[in-house]
Amino acid sequence: MTNIKEINFAQERLEGFVRETPILNSPFLDEIAGRKVFIKAECLQHTGSFKFRGGWSAISAMNYDQRKNGVLAVSSGNHAQGVAYAAKAFGVKAVIIMPKDAPALKIENTKRLGAEVILYDRLNQDREALGLRISKERSLTSIKPYDEPLVIAGQGTCGLEIASQSKKLNIIESDVIVCCGGGGLTSGIALALESEAPKLKVRTAEPANFNDVAISLKDGKITRNHALTGSICDAILTPQPGELTFPIMNKLCGPGLTVSDQECLEAMYLAFLRLKLVLEPGGAAALAAALFRTNEIKGDNVIVVATGGNVDTTIFSQAIKNASEHS
Amino acid sequence: MTNIKEINFAQERLEGFVRETPILNSPFLDEIAGRKVFIKAECLQHTGSFKFRGGWSAISAMNYDQRKNGVLAVSSGNHAQGVAYAAKAFGVKAVIIMPKDAPALKIENTKRLGAEVILYDRLNQDREALGLRISKERSLTSIKPYDEPLVIAGQGTCGLEIASQSKKLNIIESDVIVCCGGGGLTSGIALALESEAPKLKVRTAEPANFNDVAISLKDGKITRNHALTGSICDAILTPQPGELTFPIMNKLCGPGLTVSDQECLEAMYLAFLRLKLVLEPGGAAALAAALFRTNEIKGDNVIVVATGGNVDTTIFSQAIKNASEHS
Repeated sequence: MTNIKEINFAQERLEGFVRETPILNSPFLDEIAGRKVFIKAECLQHTGSFKFRGGWSAISAMNYDQRKNGVLAVSSGNHAQGVAYAAKAFGVKAVIIMPKDAPALKIENTKRLGAEVILYDRLNQDREALGLRISKERSLTSIKPYDEPLVIAGQGTCGLEIASQSKKLNIIESDVIVCCGGGGLTSGIALALESEAPKLKVRTAEPANFNDVAISLKDGKITRNHALTGSICDAILTPQPGELTFPIMNKLCGPGLTVSDQECLEAMYLAFLRLKLVLEPGGAAALAAALFRTNEIKGDNVIVVATGGNVDTTIFSQAIKNASEHS
Repeated sequence: MTNIKEINFAQERLEGFVRETPILNSPFLDEIAGRKVFIKAECLQHTGSFKFRGGWSAISAMNYDQRKNGVLAVSSGNHAQGVAYAAKAFGVKAVIIMPKDAPALKIENTKRLGAEVILYDRLNQDREALGLRISKERSLTSIKPYDEPLVIAGQGTCGLEIASQSKKLNIIESDVIVCCGGGGLTSGIALALESEAPKLKVRTAEPANFNDVAISLKDGKITRNHALTGSICDAILTPQPGELTFPIMNKLCGPGLTVSDQECLEAMYLAFLRLKLVLEPGGAAALAAALFRTNEIKGDNVIVVATGGNVDTTIFSQAIKNASEHS
């Protein structure tokens, strides 16, 4: 199991390259939530999401033979960009397998970061099998998006920052809500906080019908979603928690929170209005939970991780248009 | 004349309350500019603009009699919010005189920050006379938006941050482009950099037809704009440079840069896309200059100050829609 030592090593490898993203707040958001809301703005990370941390962590730990051959990632977008950016910096060839229906922006960015992008059909092709075949044929090192210790350790560096920033803000006890897909970031942050700020308790935020982590945490065992498509939160739609991440989350996390797509859009509008941040729907789930699930949260403070901002203009326009008409 | 000592004192008063805003960058923006572009994200400051610094600096320096009576500011928006926020924190009554046609969002925010807002008619009322009358009647201390030493010193703290952050980024020599209205921020930053990083040269960015500072710098004397209305860059439309700020700018700043409204909209789109930042048109002028006036800039690096993000949803939607259609 990944541990704090590996997170500290990852931090050493990331130092000087990762951004320590700021923690922001607004009295207007506090008013809505009925408590102080602190937003860790990971959308300001390189490539627009926390995924840079895990990608950099994995590639920076590879030996020269591995680097010579290159890396492969299967991703609908943010992991793709994180890996592509890190690979480019290390001069490593990156092959990224992306679904044809991934947001156009994420596909384009990945290509422009120098990666070779191979598109697949979500309904008719098995992406795992495709990835396995290509990585074998080309001797590429596969970097999984969450079930990979080096990736979990990299994402955990976000937790180290939260621990030290919270201390400066005098936040000793609080829920820390994390937008959750497969659980790489969630479990990494949970491990970091267990060691560095044990009264900060990690909880997950997921969209309705894709709250596999919340259900799995409740059941105490890995449970799959029934739905496969049907949410705008593309960044965090995973069929089930990871094999490596779930035991960590099951040990360390509080009950999961579930929000609607509409609430994510409203949170995007409020982040635009009050924080001057651009969030994507999946990156706004934790803020939505803090603002609209106030009865399920305790204490005077809540910390949320705004995990990403890679959103197409049409969805963003919709978010700020609809919400401003309703407010 | 304001000096570095006063800026250092302002920094002491602001410490623990102001945000040290991050400096961001993107390889995609570097590609457009043909050099590395570093963006000081002052839109992430409290109240969504750098104006918080000056407001806090002024109120924190007031004696108790002045605080008891309250403060007055005349502003179309960002200065209003900065003063209102600081006044609220110090428990000081704030009266803000705003034009009726100021962006609705800025008027609403100022009210919700606890200030009394008095609206005036830009065409038929003299706002200076109105402000003078009310401040006299109610014994309010007037906080001018730029021609006020304590405000210049407060804005100068942004320059201290740029100096120390640039050092960490190994940027020794560079233009520092600042979105410029009356020159409070520009002159404050110029004074701070003169002392702390003398090879960082401040230059102004202004919208076409409102480039009074660029023209005044060229002429070596204060020159007024012909136009009074007709740009979307509401935050930086001032008739002429300040009496206190101009001598500082004239001594320390390089030639001014001028951009079109359309270029500001495109810079807003690129900040959305590449930095996950929300900028208002006037807050995007410096980025627009760095991206679209590349021939007027020298060197491998350029620093821009993204001064604010208080933009209505309609203008923001327009910016991201138009630009994405053209790209």
